[in-house]
Amino acid sequence: MAKMLEGLKVIDITNNIAGPGAAAMLADHGAEVIHVEKPVWGDDARNYVPQIDGVSSCYMFSNRSKKSLVLDLKDPEAVEVLKKLAADADVFLEANRPGVMKRLGLDYEVIREINPDIIYCSISAFGQTGPKSQVPGYDIIAQAYSGMAYYTGEPGTPPVKNYFAVGDFVAGYNAFGSIMTALYYRAVTGRGQYVDVSLARGLLTMNMCIGDRVSGIPREKTGSHDMHLCPYGIFNGPNGDNVIIGAINVNTWRNLCLAMERPELAGDPRYITNDVRVAHKQEVISIIEDWLGSFATMEEAVERLNRFGVPNMKAYTVDDILSDEHALSQGWIRDIPTPESVKSADSLPGMLGYADFSEGELVLRPAPDLGQHNMEILTGCGLSYEEARRLTEKWLRG
Amino acid sequence: MAKMLEGLKVIDITNNIAGPGAAAMLADHGAEVIHVEKPVWGDDARNYVPQIDGVSSCYMFSNRSKKSLVLDLKDPEAVEVLKKLAADADVFLEANRPGVMKRLGLDYEVIREINPDIIYCSISAFGQTGPKSQVPGYDIIAQAYSGMAYYTGEPGTPPVKNYFAVGDFVAGYNAFGSIMTALYYRAVTGRGQYVDVSLARGLLTMNMCIGDRVSGIPREKTGSHDMHLCPYGIFNGPNGDNVIIGAINVNTWRNLCLAMERPELAGDPRYITNDVRVAHKQEVISIIEDWLGSFATMEEAVERLNRFGVPNMKAYTVDDILSDEHALSQGWIRDIPTPESVKSADSLPGMLGYADFSEGELVLRPAPDLGQHNMEILTGCGLSYEEARRLTEKWLRG
Repeated sequence: MAKMLEGLKVIDITNNIAGPGAAAMLADHGAEVIHVEKPVWGDDARNYVPQIDGVSSCYMFSNRSKKSLVLDLKDPEAVEVLKKLAADADVFLEANRPGVMKRLGLDYEVIREINPDIIYCSISAFGQTGPKSQVPGYDIIAQAYSGMAYYTGEPGTPPVKNYFAVGDFVAGYNAFGSIMTALYYRAVTGRGQYVDVSLARGLLTMNMCIGDRVSGIPREKTGSHDMHLCPYGIFNGPNGDNVIIGAINVNTWRNLCLAMERPELAGDPRYITNDVRVAHKQEVISIIEDWLGSFATMEEAVERLNRFGVPNMKAYTVDDILSDEHALSQGWIRDIPTPESVKSADSLPGMLGYADFSEGELVLRPAPDLGQHNMEILTGCGLSYEEARRLTEKWLRG
Repeated sequence: MAKMLEGLKVIDITNNIAGPGAAAMLADHGAEVIHVEKPVWGDDARNYVPQIDGVSSCYMFSNRSKKSLVLDLKDPEAVEVLKKLAADADVFLEANRPGVMKRLGLDYEVIREINPDIIYCSISAFGQTGPKSQVPGYDIIAQAYSGMAYYTGEPGTPPVKNYFAVGDFVAGYNAFGSIMTALYYRAVTGRGQYVDVSLARGLLTMNMCIGDRVSGIPREKTGSHDMHLCPYGIFNGPNGDNVIIGAINVNTWRNLCLAMERPELAGDPRYITNDVRVAHKQEVISIIEDWLGSFATMEEAVERLNRFGVPNMKAYTVDDILSDEHALSQGWIRDIPTPESVKSADSLPGMLGYADFSEGELVLRPAPDLGQHNMEILTGCGLSYEEARRLTEKWLRG
């Protein structure tokens, strides 16, 4: 087992969730990630709620295993420091509004003069070019643009906001994947490059609704049940409880019919295949919900679904997640160590990792306090102790 | 510009959306991707609706630029063919229920004996080990497990199903990112490995709700507005229309106040920072919705929001997306060529790419018809024309 990205150096000039999340994935694999933060407040996410000892959980989870370098991007001395750092960096990741890095004198044209092999990745709402390139990069804007907001929810209701910052996370995953692609290509050819990642594009690519131009049948909201799969959705049961059931292939549909003691339904021409069930969707939903309603509790119904091998799941709350034996036993949820300034807790439960690698072990260090690594990083790129101290004090104060 | 993964060979024994999507991303970059499909029906996604000339749009989009090899995994002759293909493959991707590949004699232990350098990636609902490893891999199960279903939607309402197959897509992105990480590591060290990707874990990692253990304040559903950001949500306006607005920092909040001709609100102690606005969220929402309601049409309100630099977006429908100048001009939506058997249309609008690379060009070929490349692939791995023909006919029929 090895730290697969050990030896790589990453400059992470990003904020909030998408960029920091992508850089954290590189840090998980052992890359040295220097998170560049602005004076006084640092990364905006430091100031989100909830907080513990003045540090937000969002910041802690998105910046695990990184170093923090506080500096003022508008200060020419800071620009010089970043150029020195970029000279032997492998990845330069930024998530400012398109055009800002050029104004600061830190765009790809400048950085590649210093280091032609670097992978320079920009994350933005709508990419670096085109009519929407200056639209700001909020997650919810990407949810709206992609069609996710419009099509989610019950028919006749307004658009729905996803509770998760799914546009941010997907952009982070895409930035990570594209940086790894560029690093692979560099390992093979020696060539660095520029990569342009967009929140809006990441979610838009998930919009299979586009395919309906094929049929000429317009998409519509279908609420808690799928448009093209049946039974596949959220079903009401006893005591206001509900359960997610998906039983769309021959075996799982038959299993559900047996669980309901309605074996004849499995061979009924109205219900025999997914396509005909979709045409009789309301009937299928009613049959299932009537059956669920016949139990005193949802637990009893679920026990029977499980016994008959019918795919089902409760809509988990945070309590369910944090006590889930699977997530805990597999290391999906771990005790994430807290930054030094957090005295009230040594660690907090959080997620780590998106995959398990037989050759790769994950790193897990606490997120840094603001400017915690300034002296180490600044003296490491050739500044004297006094210079490093002067600049750090200037930049911490703002 | 180059095809960055040209020369790599990928065996894609997956189905539906997650695995085929990950393999398609490798094909986009020029890898040779052999999509292994089962007799008669092929990939389940071929049979989804909507269809054109009997081919589903879902299949076409998730399998662009691949080759199709139809075979029966239960046939020992097919297992031998796959072992021959694996001998010089770079990536082996499968998405069967954990344990199935071992029963077929095609698990990592077998394949790495043949090819020690291979990257073998498995995608499943809950990963290869642990108490939930046998839970089947529907997207909606991952939505439920991650907490996304529970926390999305208005307070007091049941869980909400996301219209997008977000669990599938995120698993695909994570499989792609982890395969690229493993390919990078192999390029550096020469070592292959096994990678274990899960739909449930991919979405669970997005659940920032976990952080609320920090504060002791339980999460709740907050509907169309964020729990911790304000104003940040979906706002009602004239004629039943709505608009997404995010104006959470100093500048954008001030811009919104100016747009509303309420400059005094920007400095009002009840509204001056995001945190205090969150504490007065219903008031802020009412102020904004009253103002929006004063316009004859939402278009007029949006025109004013844009003029004042307030981040906003309509919840796009498919019509909006397919006519969006940005997506079209940036190549996010392209004419995807149709498979040979589709005679009614040469191409259909679809998404291509998740990022732009300065060094990398994307490949775009049609998805294959079922078994279209059997003869090429089988004779290519040493079978005689007659043998290839015999096996293809056997496997096409099933």
